[in-house]
Amino acid sequence: MTGAAAPRRRGRPGYDLEALLAVAVEVFNTRGYDGTSMEDLSRALGIAKSAIYHHVSGKEELLRLSLDRALDGLFAVADDVRATPASAIEKLERLVRGSVEVLQRELPHVTLLLRVRGNTPTEQAALERRRQFDRYVAGLVRQAERDGDLHADLDPAITAHLLFGLVNSVVEWYRPGKRATDAALADHVCRLAFDGLRAR
Amino acid sequence: MTGAAAPRRRGRPGYDLEALLAVAVEVFNTRGYDGTSMEDLSRALGIAKSAIYHHVSGKEELLRLSLDRALDGLFAVADDVRATPASAIEKLERLVRGSVEVLQRELPHVTLLLRVRGNTPTEQAALERRRQFDRYVAGLVRQAERDGDLHADLDPAITAHLLFGLVNSVVEWYRPGKRATDAALADHVCRLAFDGLRAR
Repeated sequence: MTGAAAPRRRGRPGYDLEALLAVAVEVFNTRGYDGTSMEDLSRALGIAKSAIYHHVSGKEELLRLSLDRALDGLFAVADDVRATPASAIEKLERLVRGSVEVLQRELPHVTLLLRVRGNTPTEQAALERRRQFDRYVAGLVRQAERDGDLHADLDPAITAHLLFGLVNSVVEWYRPGKRATDAALADHVCRLAFDGLRAR
Repeated sequence: MTGAAAPRRRGRPGYDLEALLAVAVEVFNTRGYDGTSMEDLSRALGIAKSAIYHHVSGKEELLRLSLDRALDGLFAVADDVRATPASAIEKLERLVRGSVEVLQRELPHVTLLLRVRGNTPTEQAALERRRQFDRYVAGLVRQAERDGDLHADLDPAITAHLLFGLVNSVVEWYRPGKRATDAALADHVCRLAFDGLRAR
């Protein structure tokens, strides 16, 4: 359909913004954002820096696009959960399930998000959105505890930390497509967190 | 008791090896091991590089001492568990509990261990010991599953990843002494992992 002479939709060959972002995020995750220069990106992409500047104003815009991809996914889940009429513990389970699915779908972006330490305004804004998400989680845990739906001897603040520590730990080992069980991962996390491993 | 003229036991003032290691590990965890030079350590310690070389051959020896501190702690727990007559699921619970306690006691060293990516022989040796520990965990999970002590619908490989992902995630937020619940943390992790959050 598209022969060699077909006009391209963009002025620069090789990369659209999406493909450029994918490569940039891999480089950020390997070298660290602070340790990545525009030269490094230019080399990894095999295009001139000027071709990168055709798409973005610099590496911080690539960082922002990546962190927003992860955060927008997580906030979309939180918005869905908020709009669902359900008990706090059911909402918590939906939030965990949806977060694991976002992590699987946007793995490089969530990995980058979890490594952010707040060295730039973009990173500080991302950390503030993470804290907002964490406050929503903590509120649901406290409500589930008040509802009597959590074991009474558990500290809600620790529970909230452990629950999303468990979810986030998946970035350390999960690689898409490596297992036939990709589809079952979110179920597995929920089963462990809410019902525990022990058969009874 | 020790006046200004009292002889010091060591030739160099200010730091013994233990105190030097504690500062070095903080710097490694903040700047990254690769990003830390002997100059950085000298500045953080407020002593000359020659005074550091009085104790160690260089920064890689400090890295090795730190990683061994974490790994020796974890292997001591595994050795205790191995010597205990108990079912696989009981051993697994003791291993989780003991690992959380090592993490609390040796927090900076375990944090460093979990960030190691294998860029030096010392890091590769540490990663090999981590894999050995992980294989022990995975073996216990498989045995517990064969014993019928785990929910039958859980994949043992994923369970092993999630269980120690949960344990290791504690380094992301736990700070000793910040909570009256320090003593209860290992219990809390075991309760979540083995019994689940949901009251029944």
